[in-house]
Amino acid sequence: MERININSSKRNELIDITAKISRLVEKSGIQNGLCFLYVPHTTAGITINESADPAVKNDLIKKLSELVPENNKYSHTEGNADSHIKSSLIGCSVIVPIENNSLALGTWQGIFFCEFDGPRARSVLFKAIEC
Amino acid sequence: MERININSSKRNELIDITAKISRLVEKSGIQNGLCFLYVPHTTAGITINESADPAVKNDLIKKLSELVPENNKYSHTEGNADSHIKSSLIGCSVIVPIENNSLALGTWQGIFFCEFDGPRARSVLFKAIEC
Amino acid sequence: MERININSSKRNELIDITAKISRLVEKSGIQNGLCFLYVPHTTAGITINESADPAVKNDLIKKLSELVPENNKYSHTEGNADSHIKSSLIGCSVIVPIENNSLALGTWQGIFFCEFDGPRARSVLFKAIEC
Repeated sequence: MERININSSKRNELIDITAKISRLVEKSGIQNGLCFLYVPHTTAGITINESADPAVKNDLIKKLSELVPENNKYSHTEGNADSHIKSSLIGCSVIVPIENNSLALGTWQGIFFCEFDGPRARSVLFKAIEC
Repeated sequence: MERININSSKRNELIDITAKISRLVEKSGIQNGLCFLYVPHTTAGITINESADPAVKNDLIKKLSELVPENNKYSHTEGNADSHIKSSLIGCSVIVPIENNSLALGTWQGIFFCEFDGPRARSVLFKAIEC
Repeated sequence: MERININSSKRNELIDITAKISRLVEKSGIQNGLCFLYVPHTTAGITINESADPAVKNDLIKKLSELVPENNKYSHTEGNADSHIKSSLIGCSVIVPIENNSLALGTWQGIFFCEFDGPRARSVLFKAIEC
């Protein structure tokens, strides 16, 4: 298992980690298989979406904050109940197929670490199998 | 890896692909294992839900469009910011266990390709492992 | 494949199943690998979130019921259209890495079965691989 370190700089932020994951896939030597990414945090997530236009990630952040506002009479008193809820809506793991020693992402797809309670030092766990 | 081709006919549409996936599982010869499905698109998703009553998929489409309306002062200017957001809420991959060379779906479960920016020609990637 | 049995006691309820999954990982003897959990139901889900403060799961339940109210002019007439929608928003599977024969969960993470149409007798399917 490999661990990718990420430093977020805002409370809500989508960070493109595609290049980091691609390098780990290359290094693994796996020609055809599956890549598994796991976020060991409860106020963050991981998603795959368009990486070409940064407006897409900003729209996602804005909509999530509309649906799950920072202040909303929550029971959890640490001021980040919204961050926990966003984490469960987005999810903390993704799988991506590997083809010819590369991520089989679609043309417009990138992999984003989703920070919902930054800035913080974070990590993503990486596993890959040949299959 | 196998590639399933799908043609959607509406902007928002849930398409039951259970039969197609079942045939690939049978063809794989795998008795017990896991099936991985991956959508290489940024304005689509994949989910597992009730396939018996078509009202369920219509309710899901309607609720998603209420939560994430098509027009909502988005930054992304291609007219499909909502489609990208829905994609991240639903997710672009699922796993399903395989038992006795069949998908171990629950009684009411079906696998649905989720079109959020159709009509388009789409695909789903299929991988399965014995384990 | 192992099957974990769960009995929910409320309509909406998050049930911490971390200890049950941990025991299955230990029993599997797998040192390093991946654990796959699958919910074979269409009105339930599975998520990973904070297990220390029970307020977090209550906030998640409350917010989901705000976004997807029980009564909302749905087409599905069985009175649980909201439960189906919540199931697709949360998802019915998760993966967790295994390290040193233990779940590689983050410090605050627990695994929760999400009941959205209880009380019911439910199950979660467990698979694990060495890799």
